Amino acid sequence: MSKPPRILLTGFTPFGNEVINPSWEAVRLLHDQRIADHRVVAHLLPTAFEDSRRELEAVVHEVEPSILLGVGQAGGRSRLSIERVAINVQDARLPDNTGAQPIDEAVVPGGPAAYFSTLPIKAMLAALQAEGLPVEISNTAGTFVCNHIAYLMLHEAAQRQGMRAGFMHIPYLPEQAVRLPQAPSMAKDDVVRALTVVLRVAARQVIDDRLGAGTLD
Amino acid sequence: MSKPPRILLTGFTPFGNEVINPSWEAVRLLHDQRIADHRVVAHLLPTAFEDSRRELEAVVHEVEPSILLGVGQAGGRSRLSIERVAINVQDARLPDNTGAQPIDEAVVPGGPAAYFSTLPIKAMLAALQAEGLPVEISNTAGTFVCNHIAYLMLHEAAQRQGMRAGFMHIPYLPEQAVRLPQAPSMAKDDVVRALTVVLRVAARQVIDDRLGAGTLD
Amino acid sequence: MSKPPRILLTGFTPFGNEVINPSWEAVRLLHDQRIADHRVVAHLLPTAFEDSRRELEAVVHEVEPSILLGVGQAGGRSRLSIERVAINVQDARLPDNTGAQPIDEAVVPGGPAAYFSTLPIKAMLAALQAEGLPVEISNTAGTFVCNHIAYLMLHEAAQRQGMRAGFMHIPYLPEQAVRLPQAPSMAKDDVVRALTVVLRVAARQVIDDRLGAGTLD
Amino acid sequence: MSKPPRILLTGFTPFGNEVINPSWEAVRLLHDQRIADHRVVAHLLPTAFEDSRRELEAVVHEVEPSILLGVGQAGGRSRLSIERVAINVQDARLPDNTGAQPIDEAVVPGGPAAYFSTLPIKAMLAALQAEGLPVEISNTAGTFVCNHIAYLMLHEAAQRQGMRAGFMHIPYLPEQAVRLPQAPSMAKDDVVRALTVVLRVAARQVIDDRLGAGTLD
Repeated sequence: MSKPPRILLTGFTPFGNEVINPSWEAVRLLHDQRIADHRVVAHLLPTAFEDSRRELEAVVHEVEPSILLGVGQAGGRSRLSIERVAINVQDARLPDNTGAQPIDEAVVPGGPAAYFSTLPIKAMLAALQAEGLPVEISNTAGTFVCNHIAYLMLHEAAQRQGMRAGFMHIPYLPEQAVRLPQAPSMAKDDVVRALTVVLRVAARQVIDDRLGAGTLD
Repeated sequence: MSKPPRILLTGFTPFGNEVINPSWEAVRLLHDQRIADHRVVAHLLPTAFEDSRRELEAVVHEVEPSILLGVGQAGGRSRLSIERVAINVQDARLPDNTGAQPIDEAVVPGGPAAYFSTLPIKAMLAALQAEGLPVEISNTAGTFVCNHIAYLMLHEAAQRQGMRAGFMHIPYLPEQAVRLPQAPSMAKDDVVRALTVVLRVAARQVIDDRLGAGTLD
Repeated sequence: MSKPPRILLTGFTPFGNEVINPSWEAVRLLHDQRIADHRVVAHLLPTAFEDSRRELEAVVHEVEPSILLGVGQAGGRSRLSIERVAINVQDARLPDNTGAQPIDEAVVPGGPAAYFSTLPIKAMLAALQAEGLPVEISNTAGTFVCNHIAYLMLHEAAQRQGMRAGFMHIPYLPEQAVRLPQAPSMAKDDVVRALTVVLRVAARQVIDDRLGAGTLD
Repeated sequence: MSKPPRILLTGFTPFGNEVINPSWEAVRLLHDQRIADHRVVAHLLPTAFEDSRRELEAVVHEVEPSILLGVGQAGGRSRLSIERVAINVQDARLPDNTGAQPIDEAVVPGGPAAYFSTLPIKAMLAALQAEGLPVEISNTAGTFVCNHIAYLMLHEAAQRQGMRAGFMHIPYLPEQAVRLPQAPSMAKDDVVRALTVVLRVAARQVIDDRLGAGTLD
């Protein structure tokens, strides 16, 4: 009897002034769940450029997932953000959790300038909208550890048959937004529901829908 | 055996392009609940200047509440907003649900320029923060039907012994924010929890805490 | 030969982390100018509750203006904000320039809860729009020294025949916004032009236009 | 006597509901100016995918610039935005000025996923900050005609010796922001000054400074 295909779902450790990271708070609740005949492996990545790279390589080697979805905190965003693209640059506005603060260094020296997500982002968008969850396609995952991991996942997937990858940013949790004037937030239940929905779509659909979701700038 | 004291909790009908109003979606779930020895009477008000006034007068006469809390939708706000003050003006950016669009008319001709909330707004703020819910003190309830009802509740309470009143704005629900780019939202469960918390504080505490919650502008 | 009527135009000293205050940078350029047969007296007020009150009383006594316009910095606002109302509360988010940080104290104990501007705010709004300058009617001047001075000006004017008063908030200058991520700003030339326009309207017109400029919340 | 090297500086025609485009309003004022021994050729591009491509190819062929700087309107941004990267996708939120609305099509089929700016963006950033002008490095130029032209300029430059290219987004002008609630704006004088500054830096400096300007998400 064959093992079910695996989804590797990653969250991050807290960084900056935060004591929790909403990505891990949500992602951990899906560990070992079955979604569309796939088994979810939730994995915690350190918010650190080099350590997260090593950790990602190890867990991909071990889990051999067919789908990788990285999840990260986007403090200040008001909705779920499905990332369209990851770029080959590290430009850290603050030190990562090991104190490293690279400026304008490549994620993968010699790698392509960018990778587009290979998950069906427009179908994921439509499925979340149908669930009544606020969501957008984002054209930047920033230049910190989130973009770095998004790029590395796509770089990995580009070299393996049958592996697809993508990244999603999520807002603060309400408990984080309490002490941050004006910061929007999203309930953890809604984030968990959103992850379940997008993973189901990603597991079932390879070719994306043709749906407009552009931005003017 | 005496009747328990009553809390009159009001929500509004949808307005503008909306088909639901989050205030009523949350408020209705608390109807008939017991909170700190008070019985909650949830009541739906029309989003219309004159009709809401008549309806409010009738229900106050009938229920004889000791506490009035008006709740309204503040589309675009990212957190619970406890209103500090209501002003004696109607200046409608869009027509109300009966088509009326007053410009710079008094809510109560000859009434004071403003009323301050007589609920313990700082204690309510602190209690919500302790619950992990994003909240702020707001210094304007706008100039539409929400401010109008807030002013009328406080005007009513100013004339009766033992009646206190206040108003709270709440964000869009996630299902409303879906089709509104950038609009923040809050889960209905969190709004309901927030209402329960602030009503408990309002029922138990008359003198407010001395806590800073100012804004520079 | 009689003296021309005077306009008292006030700006504030810098506060918080700022080394300039855009209100004074703009206001000072209009000192001694003639606008619609009035002479402008520009005066600098300290960003401090008690000192600004004393200073305002002294300068009003000395200048005997027929029009008072207070101007203050509203860091974070993107446009000129003509204030509709000032409320009788001090609730300081940060200490003023003398270290005082009042919480929920009255500006004038026993004074009315609020005063509405007695300048023709809608006509001023329309005149600025016609000039191509972004402007809004605001329903809160906050709870710091700006609102305090706005309230005091209106309190003063309420007690004198032929004296009218109002308040306008202005954005950061570009040079301040440089180091503040996302903060909008407005060029000093545009602010000075705006002040000239609104003072001309205020000098010429006593009864306001009936123009809608409301907000929903 | 040899001709001076040329800078090709482009602006766009108005689109959407706008009757002006701030990019062209500013860019046109620099036509034929000398900046750091270069001659500026200002050129108007249509806000249309195919027409702008043809127009760009023709003018590059004619002018043979050593520097290309595209400028475009970013309605809603509060500051000058120096773009770091352009991506190989067209995803139009609204129809372009010829009615075309491509969804998820490549700018250059078979081209790289993205190009990084080859102008010294960090040195340009620092020079604008020193001028007191609010500026940021942006990691997305959107997916409409601006990103399309940014990509095409960089694609062109990638194939020619000694040609460098980049893109800058600018806010609305104040006269546009008048009727757009909350929209920030920037004075035209400041935009023109900013363009002069960045072109001087671009003309004089090939290797960029190493300055952090990252974003977390």
